[in-house]
Amino acid sequence: MPKAIEFWYEFASTYSYPAAMRIEELAAAKGVQVAWKPFLLGVIFRNMGFESTPFNEQPVKGAYMWRDMERLCEKFGLGFQRPDPFPQSSMFGTRIASALPDDGTRAAFSRALYARQFADGMGLSDQEGIAALLADLGHDPAKVIETALSQDNKDALRARTQQAVELGIFGAPMIRTSDGEMFWGHDRLEDAVQWAVDH
Amino acid sequence: MPKAIEFWYEFASTYSYPAAMRIEELAAAKGVQVAWKPFLLGVIFRNMGFESTPFNEQPVKGAYMWRDMERLCEKFGLGFQRPDPFPQSSMFGTRIASALPDDGTRAAFSRALYARQFADGMGLSDQEGIAALLADLGHDPAKVIETALSQDNKDALRARTQQAVELGIFGAPMIRTSDGEMFWGHDRLEDAVQWAVDH
Repeated sequence: MPKAIEFWYEFASTYSYPAAMRIEELAAAKGVQVAWKPFLLGVIFRNMGFESTPFNEQPVKGAYMWRDMERLCEKFGLGFQRPDPFPQSSMFGTRIASALPDDGTRAAFSRALYARQFADGMGLSDQEGIAALLADLGHDPAKVIETALSQDNKDALRARTQQAVELGIFGAPMIRTSDGEMFWGHDRLEDAVQWAVDH
Repeated sequence: MPKAIEFWYEFASTYSYPAAMRIEELAAAKGVQVAWKPFLLGVIFRNMGFESTPFNEQPVKGAYMWRDMERLCEKFGLGFQRPDPFPQSSMFGTRIASALPDDGTRAAFSRALYARQFADGMGLSDQEGIAALLADLGHDPAKVIETALSQDNKDALRARTQQAVELGIFGAPMIRTSDGEMFWGHDRLEDAVQWAVDH
């Protein structure tokens, strides 16, 4: 049986961006398959009593994070600009990602949407921009958006976010291995992939 | 001029433990000198509005951290047990570390105290245990403790903690480079040392 990990990600999450851009290559190099699990971290933050992301609630931590993101993106050759406002509302993009099959299609859209947001400065609520992105990727945008806004797809995303709560996911990105280990953050991608290989 | 970094650490901080045990070797391998900067993170957390460590305030994050510490310590060959209670009161040990000169003496004591706490389960408030540790390291415990409890030393520690606030330090461990870059957490030791080499 092939080794596998789950990649839990939130489109508005800064550190999810370099993680999403890098995880497939890291995993493939070790023969590990990646399941892409988009969820809504804002729901979880509200459950934890936060009104916004901790990066806004604790400005000194936020200032650190922005500088850290600049350094990380430069290190890995990724474009970066600060989304305005931050965090972006990720509901629409997450519903689109959920509507796409997890056979590489969802991953390709997710990487492209991260790049549009963090490298190009497109807003996550820009539905026309997202439709154009879908077209660029060879999809029929109207058809994907119709599926994305269906009750079944909304329910599936709600259920996945509820599963994240039940798994104890409190931030993004989170990588979960087949044996239930969790690794939090872009910094732990390599450890997570190695754990999947070794166990 | 030799490359240098500052290692800001708190004895009660879990991730400061593997960082303290590993940083000298990592830095020395790249020709980087380490200044050891013990400070009191509890003061900073209270300034940020926390009543305790976020690992206690957010139980789901705490549960993750304990498992993560087990994995990290196993990976790096470090003993680990969970301090009880957590966090420990670090005032006495931090005053001792502050009283020792930063010429390798402070680093050696600090590593030993981390190991006693996290590998052996000694309480940070165990003043007899800390005196025995000082004796093991070749110090005159009574003399070091007298210096540690002097007003000058208390003031120096207070000033260092205030400096941490002014630098924007919001957690531990924090590594600061000569050009003012900061790297937060055990996960970023390698990046911090490499930054010092490259800049």
